[in-house]
Amino acid sequence: MANKKIGLIVGAGTGLSASLARKFSGAGMQIALASRDTKKLSNLVDELGAAVYSCETSDPKSVRDLFSSVQLDLGDPEVVIFNASKRIRGEITEIDVEEVRDAILTTCYGGFLVGQEAAKIMKRVGSGTIMFTGASAGVKGFPKSATFAMGKFGLRGLAQSMARELHPQNIHVAHVVVDGGIHSEGTNSFSGEGEDNWLLPDAIADTYYHLHTQHRSAWTWEIEVRPWVENF
Amino acid sequence: MANKKIGLIVGAGTGLSASLARKFSGAGMQIALASRDTKKLSNLVDELGAAVYSCETSDPKSVRDLFSSVQLDLGDPEVVIFNASKRIRGEITEIDVEEVRDAILTTCYGGFLVGQEAAKIMKRVGSGTIMFTGASAGVKGFPKSATFAMGKFGLRGLAQSMARELHPQNIHVAHVVVDGGIHSEGTNSFSGEGEDNWLLPDAIADTYYHLHTQHRSAWTWEIEVRPWVENF
Amino acid sequence: MANKKIGLIVGAGTGLSASLARKFSGAGMQIALASRDTKKLSNLVDELGAAVYSCETSDPKSVRDLFSSVQLDLGDPEVVIFNASKRIRGEITEIDVEEVRDAILTTCYGGFLVGQEAAKIMKRVGSGTIMFTGASAGVKGFPKSATFAMGKFGLRGLAQSMARELHPQNIHVAHVVVDGGIHSEGTNSFSGEGEDNWLLPDAIADTYYHLHTQHRSAWTWEIEVRPWVENF
Amino acid sequence: MANKKIGLIVGAGTGLSASLARKFSGAGMQIALASRDTKKLSNLVDELGAAVYSCETSDPKSVRDLFSSVQLDLGDPEVVIFNASKRIRGEITEIDVEEVRDAILTTCYGGFLVGQEAAKIMKRVGSGTIMFTGASAGVKGFPKSATFAMGKFGLRGLAQSMARELHPQNIHVAHVVVDGGIHSEGTNSFSGEGEDNWLLPDAIADTYYHLHTQHRSAWTWEIEVRPWVENF
Repeated sequence: MANKKIGLIVGAGTGLSASLARKFSGAGMQIALASRDTKKLSNLVDELGAAVYSCETSDPKSVRDLFSSVQLDLGDPEVVIFNASKRIRGEITEIDVEEVRDAILTTCYGGFLVGQEAAKIMKRVGSGTIMFTGASAGVKGFPKSATFAMGKFGLRGLAQSMARELHPQNIHVAHVVVDGGIHSEGTNSFSGEGEDNWLLPDAIADTYYHLHTQHRSAWTWEIEVRPWVENF
Repeated sequence: MANKKIGLIVGAGTGLSASLARKFSGAGMQIALASRDTKKLSNLVDELGAAVYSCETSDPKSVRDLFSSVQLDLGDPEVVIFNASKRIRGEITEIDVEEVRDAILTTCYGGFLVGQEAAKIMKRVGSGTIMFTGASAGVKGFPKSATFAMGKFGLRGLAQSMARELHPQNIHVAHVVVDGGIHSEGTNSFSGEGEDNWLLPDAIADTYYHLHTQHRSAWTWEIEVRPWVENF
Repeated sequence: MANKKIGLIVGAGTGLSASLARKFSGAGMQIALASRDTKKLSNLVDELGAAVYSCETSDPKSVRDLFSSVQLDLGDPEVVIFNASKRIRGEITEIDVEEVRDAILTTCYGGFLVGQEAAKIMKRVGSGTIMFTGASAGVKGFPKSATFAMGKFGLRGLAQSMARELHPQNIHVAHVVVDGGIHSEGTNSFSGEGEDNWLLPDAIADTYYHLHTQHRSAWTWEIEVRPWVENF
Repeated sequence: MANKKIGLIVGAGTGLSASLARKFSGAGMQIALASRDTKKLSNLVDELGAAVYSCETSDPKSVRDLFSSVQLDLGDPEVVIFNASKRIRGEITEIDVEEVRDAILTTCYGGFLVGQEAAKIMKRVGSGTIMFTGASAGVKGFPKSATFAMGKFGLRGLAQSMARELHPQNIHVAHVVVDGGIHSEGTNSFSGEGEDNWLLPDAIADTYYHLHTQHRSAWTWEIEVRPWVENF
């Protein structure tokens, strides 16, 4: 395991995170997965030999412990992907103030905590890739979606600031705007006409991997992906 | 006092907030000012007959109490302006995780708490104006400024979402991007060449007031203001 | 007439241009109107004492002649507003190449020709305001609207470049994004529910005038206006 | 040759276009190159077996003839890349009106003519990829660069409108924002510190190719590329 490069995916579920794990593993990397709930990741442990960690992304100590464990067990991650978020819908006058705070902290502050720990390692090593999963809610504030707007706009601001700061230090920071619903095993049957309304997570993962492999003379800090049939 | 319309300015200091208070007071409104530190507002009490309240914008109870007090003392505010923020500069790897959380909660979550209370009143009344003070940091993520980027991007997302949701309910929501430093009494002597590097708070206040007076057939949700000499 | 300040509106029709003429005339300015078809402007001549000129905005000589005539007849314009455009709808594979070229030249190149002549005068005088009427089509490229997208995106690029170049020379350049249909005398009866789907041209003109009066310490280069009920 | 897929690059020079030709040729495609001046392309004919055509992109007949010749000689192009532009720098009051018109027509209208012919073929075939080379000047209007701003903003508007219109018809339209100078054989010696100021054309071509290969469930309509050291 020592000679493999390491990719850490935080906020791992069974949809996009699983596809990212398979893509980067298929390219020869050792995968570490972190999630609040690690039970759902057991099949990726078997399939990919992934290491799995429990992490609460909005808790500074939990995030620090995650990075310490990964470094101890596997080594310095070359790729870190932040894929966690919490979404609440409701009229501005109806949403619960505690749930809103929790969602902002998970979606945006959690991205900061993970990005900060990743940057500490990569600045020492002298290179690396940090990627954040954004949403159309991060570039357009929809009605009845103020909570997700705050979290995802904030995450985009973080990514852009980090890109401007860290690119000249040879650390590639990217923000992937996923515009639409991602198909996953939990989604109702995937066939027939409805198919075209979903992003396939394997297809999204191809673009994450392309960003990681870009030559530094032509780095991208942001990219949007959406289904061909999507109105945007 | 009963017949005057009421304007509430949250996050009041001696710079922009004082100019906003003077502008809206000069247009015939009763002004309420809320700030963490109310001492610095005493001259506006004398000058404008403003009511002054202590408020911690990131604390739900403190914000609810503020609105209750204003309604009890003065009545329903027709204009609510959120003007609070906290700024931390530093490399992404150096900034303190507790200070970052506190800054996000003050700048973005505080805007939500104030906006939510304002919206509750204005939906009942059937009209009103809510304005948020943004910054260039809310549309561009600068290096060594990840904290302010998260807070101000998030605030912009909130404002855009609220504008899309509340405009059709006859509530005008606007986000003013202040691009540059605002001259205030604390700023070193204001004369000579340096003058042109600052935004004059009275000039900014004129644009806030214009937004408030726009006919609803041609509402603006966002406007940027910057000094004529500013590179942007 | 010699002591009045002069405002020139190019691309004048009976909708927004008439409201702009009334607003700036009401503020004490002498109005000059230029249009391909001057017949429809006769009532503004009577009502406001406006001077009227024939102009083809995509023809360099015609635009130069216009400015020469205005200067000879009235003097240097302090405000110049470009309000002309040509719109073609149709699938990308169906639109006529000659009509597309003509539309780009009228909408975008015409704005350049007018802006260039205005800038020559204002650089000599040392001040002035140049305003361009944009559209939502200039910030979002809609399907079956490639022609208008090219023209209005191009016009926005012109306005932004001129703002960055001329603001430090004390010339205010602004781009007003009109997002929606403007009510005019030609529009079917204006009453009842349908009312809220239109921008009232008098309301838009108020915002143009506010931009013109902004103090240069807090200039805006772009503003959007849309009806309160509009989805955006 | 009959069984190879065909890629057409319009506006071909020795920099980015040569790298695009090599990349898509290396992936098994037959390359057609079109340029105002075909002499400089002779080495690509030898190296890649590329077909070369003379074309004036702002002339409708010349563009139609190009597509007719390519179809007759090679077949329907599956990929069409528009890479032509004309750039003029100068103060808004100094630039020549004829040169400005010519530049807008080459940069933006030329993109339309090429995009329209490509769309006609691809709608008939039922699939294809159309890519436009943009510039940072197409998203930010720089001072003394009004001409390029108009051309490149307009081209971006075209690309966005075409993407919204054609994606649901299974035609992928993408706009690549090249933010910085592209290194080419004409550039002074490429070594030492200066290296990092340039985009390597081979690196840019990798991203064009990735966009072409994206699964339609996760299509990108726009991407920016810039050197790691670039301030943006």
